[in-house]
Amino acid sequence: MNETNQTNKPRRTPAPRIQNAGRSNPKQKIVTGSRKETAAEVSKPKRTKTSREVRKTPVRIIPLGGLNEIGKNMTVFECSNDMFILDCGLAFPDADMPGVDIVIPDFTYVERNADKIRGIVITHGHEDHIGGLAYLLKKVNVPVYATRLTIGLIEGKLKEQGILHQVKLNVVEPKKTVKMGCMAVEFVKVNHSIPDAVGMAIHTPAGIIVHTGDFKVDYSPIDGKIIDLARFGELGSKGVLALMADSTNAERPGYTHSERTVGESFDRLFKKGEGKRIIIATFSSNIHRVQQIINCAVRYGRKVAVFGRSMINVINTAIELGYLEVPPGIIIDIDMMNRYENEKIVLITTGSQGEPMSALTRMAMNDHRKVVITPMDFIIISATPIPGNEKYVTRVVNELMKSGAEVVYEAMYEVHVSGHACQEELKLMQALTRPKFFIPVHGEYKHLKKHGDLALQMGMPKENVIIAEIGNVIETDGVTMKVVSQVPSGRILVDGLGVGDVGSIVLRDRKHLAQDGLIIIVIGIEKSVNVVAAGPDIISRGFVYVRESEELFVEARNVLRKTLADCSYAEMREWTTLKGKLRDALSEYIYQKTKRSPMILPIIMEI
Amino acid sequence: MNETNQTNKPRRTPAPRIQNAGRSNPKQKIVTGSRKETAAEVSKPKRTKTSREVRKTPVRIIPLGGLNEIGKNMTVFECSNDMFILDCGLAFPDADMPGVDIVIPDFTYVERNADKIRGIVITHGHEDHIGGLAYLLKKVNVPVYATRLTIGLIEGKLKEQGILHQVKLNVVEPKKTVKMGCMAVEFVKVNHSIPDAVGMAIHTPAGIIVHTGDFKVDYSPIDGKIIDLARFGELGSKGVLALMADSTNAERPGYTHSERTVGESFDRLFKKGEGKRIIIATFSSNIHRVQQIINCAVRYGRKVAVFGRSMINVINTAIELGYLEVPPGIIIDIDMMNRYENEKIVLITTGSQGEPMSALTRMAMNDHRKVVITPMDFIIISATPIPGNEKYVTRVVNELMKSGAEVVYEAMYEVHVSGHACQEELKLMQALTRPKFFIPVHGEYKHLKKHGDLALQMGMPKENVIIAEIGNVIETDGVTMKVVSQVPSGRILVDGLGVGDVGSIVLRDRKHLAQDGLIIIVIGIEKSVNVVAAGPDIISRGFVYVRESEELFVEARNVLRKTLADCSYAEMREWTTLKGKLRDALSEYIYQKTKRSPMILPIIMEI
Repeated sequence: MNETNQTNKPRRTPAPRIQNAGRSNPKQKIVTGSRKETAAEVSKPKRTKTSREVRKTPVRIIPLGGLNEIGKNMTVFECSNDMFILDCGLAFPDADMPGVDIVIPDFTYVERNADKIRGIVITHGHEDHIGGLAYLLKKVNVPVYATRLTIGLIEGKLKEQGILHQVKLNVVEPKKTVKMGCMAVEFVKVNHSIPDAVGMAIHTPAGIIVHTGDFKVDYSPIDGKIIDLARFGELGSKGVLALMADSTNAERPGYTHSERTVGESFDRLFKKGEGKRIIIATFSSNIHRVQQIINCAVRYGRKVAVFGRSMINVINTAIELGYLEVPPGIIIDIDMMNRYENEKIVLITTGSQGEPMSALTRMAMNDHRKVVITPMDFIIISATPIPGNEKYVTRVVNELMKSGAEVVYEAMYEVHVSGHACQEELKLMQALTRPKFFIPVHGEYKHLKKHGDLALQMGMPKENVIIAEIGNVIETDGVTMKVVSQVPSGRILVDGLGVGDVGSIVLRDRKHLAQDGLIIIVIGIEKSVNVVAAGPDIISRGFVYVRESEELFVEARNVLRKTLADCSYAEMREWTTLKGKLRDALSEYIYQKTKRSPMILPIIMEI
Repeated sequence: MNETNQTNKPRRTPAPRIQNAGRSNPKQKIVTGSRKETAAEVSKPKRTKTSREVRKTPVRIIPLGGLNEIGKNMTVFECSNDMFILDCGLAFPDADMPGVDIVIPDFTYVERNADKIRGIVITHGHEDHIGGLAYLLKKVNVPVYATRLTIGLIEGKLKEQGILHQVKLNVVEPKKTVKMGCMAVEFVKVNHSIPDAVGMAIHTPAGIIVHTGDFKVDYSPIDGKIIDLARFGELGSKGVLALMADSTNAERPGYTHSERTVGESFDRLFKKGEGKRIIIATFSSNIHRVQQIINCAVRYGRKVAVFGRSMINVINTAIELGYLEVPPGIIIDIDMMNRYENEKIVLITTGSQGEPMSALTRMAMNDHRKVVITPMDFIIISATPIPGNEKYVTRVVNELMKSGAEVVYEAMYEVHVSGHACQEELKLMQALTRPKFFIPVHGEYKHLKKHGDLALQMGMPKENVIIAEIGNVIETDGVTMKVVSQVPSGRILVDGLGVGDVGSIVLRDRKHLAQDGLIIIVIGIEKSVNVVAAGPDIISRGFVYVRESEELFVEARNVLRKTLADCSYAEMREWTTLKGKLRDALSEYIYQKTKRSPMILPIIMEI
C-alpha cells in the first residue's frame, strides 16, 4: 500500500510506474519507445483507426454496478498487476425485493484479486457511491481516497459498522493526484447536489480516462466553486482516450438550473409564509440547500431547529468541517422551540421522499413527539419524488394539508433543482474532453442509450460508443476498445444482519406468501403401522378471514382425508410422494373455490 | 321501477314527483306553496344567506368513493323516499394490498336501502366509473342508464360475470333526462379520454346539482362533439345549487391540450418511422386515440393489427356501435402480418402502463408468440405512467431499446394528452354554472383542496366549499349545505373469487410474511404422559437460504429444546402458553442473530 501517495500537481504525463508496467510486459515494448510520438498523436485526436496508431499496455475497465440500473455505482480499473476501485455504492430495493434493506454489488471479482487492489477512490458522499463501502472494506481492507467532506461522511458510516479504526482514510484535494500502481488518479472538481464532489482523470499507460462521477454545471454554486471546466478542456487537448459520464438526466433537453435559483424561491416563500412557522424538508446531504435555508432564516430573523437523525448527523459533520456557515445562536435545540413564536422559527427536516419513519412523515401522521401540524404551518417540500416514491410523498402532502397547513411541493414553485447534467451540459462535457471512446454510465439502459446518441450526434463513430453491462471487461490498448470478457457481477441483498443470505428462492417464497398467503397441512403418521394417527389439520395465514370461511376449511379437510384414504400402503411410506399428493389435491380444491394459489406446506410427523 | 322513464327534453322545472315528495312531508309544506317564488329566486343566484331564502325538501348527497382517493367513484343521491346512484367504479390496489386484484366501494348503505334505489346513472365507461357495477348489481338489481358506448362497455363486463341477462340496461342520449322518483337526471355532453362521456344535471326539489363526471374542454375533439358549455351556462343562469366537479388535474395550471394535438404528433412520427414497423401502445378505452392511429395508417398506406384482449374487445364494440370509423381492409388479422413488409403495418397494443401480462410487455421481454422486436421497430408509448407504474413502464422501455428498437415515450414528443380539466377549465366550469355550493370530487385530499381554493379565488365564501369524505351525508335544503351524519363506507377487497374475505388481518399477515418470511415449529406431545415425543422441528420459507444457514437452525432447535426442558409440568399442559413461550424464545434468538422478525408459527400435535 505504501506505493500509493499523493502528489501536489496533476501530472501532465502518466505516472512513472507506467514505464515499469511497460517493461514488465515485453510485448508492449513499443509503448516506452514511442512515448513522444504517442503524446503528439493523442493531442490531435483522430476518430478513425489508422495503421500508424500504436497499441499500448492494455487497461481494463470493469463496471460492477451503476449500468442498466440506478445506484450501487462501482467500477474497477485494472492495468498490469494493479487495480483500483472507483466508488462503492448501494441501491435501494425494488418492490420485487420484499423485506430487503439495501442492495450492494457482488464483490467476488474484487475479493479474488484482493492482492492487486491499490486503493478505492470516491467521487462524492451520496449513498449510491459510498453505501457499499463498509461491506467491501470488511472483505478487502485497502486505503480510501476522497475529498474532505466525503471522508467525513464515510467516517460516520464506518463508525456505525464498527470498523472505522481499522480503515485508512485519506483526504485528497481537487487537482491532486493519487498513484494507484501504474495508474494515477487526478481529482477534478465538479458541481453536484452535495459539496466537494469530484470527477476523476485516470492517467493510464493506454491513455487518459475521464470519469465525471455525478455532475452538473453550476455557474453560480453556493460555495463559489464552479466545476473545473478548464481542466476538463486541458485534458481534452492532451487527448482523452475514453470518457465515462453521468447519464441520469440524459433524457432531459436543456440544462439544469443553478442551486441558487432554489434560494431565490425560498426568499419568495419566506415572504409568503410570514407570520407562520416554516417547515422545510429536503435531502440531508444537500448541504448547499441547507445553507440557503439558514441564510434565509438569518435574513428573516428566524431561528432554525433541525429534525431527523441523518439531517442532524450531516449538518454536524458539515459545520465541523467548514462546509456550512451558521452564525452563532441561529440553530436552537428542539426543546427550546416553545420559547419562540411560530413566525420566528424554521424547521429543517428529513422526509422529503415520504419515507415512512422520517420526521416529516411522523409530523404528518400526528405521531411526532415535538411537532404538531396546524394551520399556522407553512411547509415546503424541497425535493422531487424519486420514481417509486410518488405515492409516499402524496400521502404525506395529503395528511399535512388535512391538518390545515399550507404545503408547497409542485414544480411551479421551483423549490428543487436536479444535481445531474441535462443534455446541453452533457454535450459540453463531450466538447471539452473530446474523447476517442465513450462509455455512458450511471443509468438504466434508456439513459445510457440516449447519452450514447448525444455522442453520435456530435460526430463520434458508432463503434466508439460502448453501452456496457455490469461484469463486462472493457479493454483498451489506446487504439481499440471493446468488451473482451465477463467477470462475476450482480446484486447482493442485505436484510438485517444478513448479507447475501436472501437470494432468488427466498424472494420467490416471500412474494408467493404475500400474494395469496399460506396453508399448512399437519398429519401425524404412526410409522410402525403406517397409519394416520393425527390430523389432517389445516392452519392458514394471509389466505382468508378464517372465521367467515369455516365451510371452506371443513371441505378442505374432507378433500385431504379422501386423498389419504385413497393412498396405497406403499404411498403412505413414501412421504415425499405423499406430501406431493396432498399438496396437489388441496391446491386444486382451493383454486377451484377461490381462484387463489396460496403456498401449501404439508408437514408429516412421525409418531 | 316503472316510474323511471326517459323524457325527450330537459326539464326546466323539477320533475313532477317533487310535489308528492313535498306533500308527503308536512313540515316542508312551504315548498309546494311557494314554487314560483322559489324558481325566481334560484334564477338570480344569491351568494349570501338571507332571511328571505326558503328552505326546501332536503336532498342528501352521499359519496361512497372517489374522495380522498383515486378511483372507485360512486355517489348516492337521496330525496324523500327516492335514491339513485351515480357511477360505481373500482380502484386498483396499492402496494400495501398484496395479492388483491381490485378494490370496490362498501355497498352496505345501498343494500340497506335497496327498496329506495330507482336506478344507476353512469357518466362514462372507464373502470373507475363502471368497474364495481357487476358487484353492485349482484346485490341490488336496478336499471342502469348510460350513453350508448358506455352501455356497450358495461354489457361486456356483465357478460364476463354472467349476469347480463338479468340486468336492465338503458341507453340515454345527451340532453335527455331520466326520472329517479322525485329527482330527474339530465345527461350533459362533456369531453374526456373516452367517447360518449357526460356530466349530469340533477334536478331535485332543493335545486339543481351539477356533477361534471370526468371532463375536459376540447374545442376540436375527434368526433366533433364539443362539451355542451352552453347547457352548463344555461343551468348556471337558472341557478345551480351545487357543483360537484372533477379534481384530478386541479394542481395543474393552464388547460389540457386537445386530443387532436396527439394526432399531429402521430403524423410527424409516422414520417419519422418511415421504413420501419410502427407499434403504438395506448389505453384501450381511448377510442379517439385509436381513431387517429387508424387515420394515420390510412394516410401512410399501412395496415393495422390489434393486440391485447381489452384492445380487441373495445375496438370491436366501438366499430359495432359506430364510434370508430375503419375503412374496409385496414385492420388485418395478426396471423396475416407476415404477408406485409415492416413499413406497411402498424400494431396497436395494450401495455402502455407496463402491465406485466400485457401484449407490449410480452413483446419487450421477448415472450410474445407473434411479435419479435428488432431494430426495424419504431415504438410509440402514447400514455403517461399513472403514479406507481413508472418503474414498470421504464422496464418495458429499457427492454424494447435493448432489442434495438427506437422508442418514443417522453413528454417532449406530445404523444399523450390528459383527459381531465386543468385549472383554467375548472374555472370556466365554475364561471358557467355559478354554483351556490361547491363539492370538489374525484381526487386525493390535495386535489380537492386545490380545487376548493380555485373556487375561493373566484369569490365563493369559504363556508360554501365542502371538502367531504366518503360516507359523509351532505344535506342541503337549498339554503344551507352541510355534513349532517355518516353512513358505512370504505373499501372492499376482491381477490380471485373472494369479495371481502381479505381484510386487515389477512393483509397484515401477508405483509409480515413478505417482509421476513416464516418459521414453523413442530412438536408432538404425548398427551397422556405430557412428554415431547417428536420434534422440535423447524421449517422455514422466505426467511434465509437454509442450506447456508445450517448452524443457525441447529442452534435454534437447541433454544427450543432448552425452552421445553425449562417448562413445568403445568406449562406443558397449557398449549397456548407453551406456544407463546416457544414463539418468544425463538423470536428473540432469531432477531439477535439476524435482526429479522419472521412470522413464527408453533404447531403442537397431540399424540
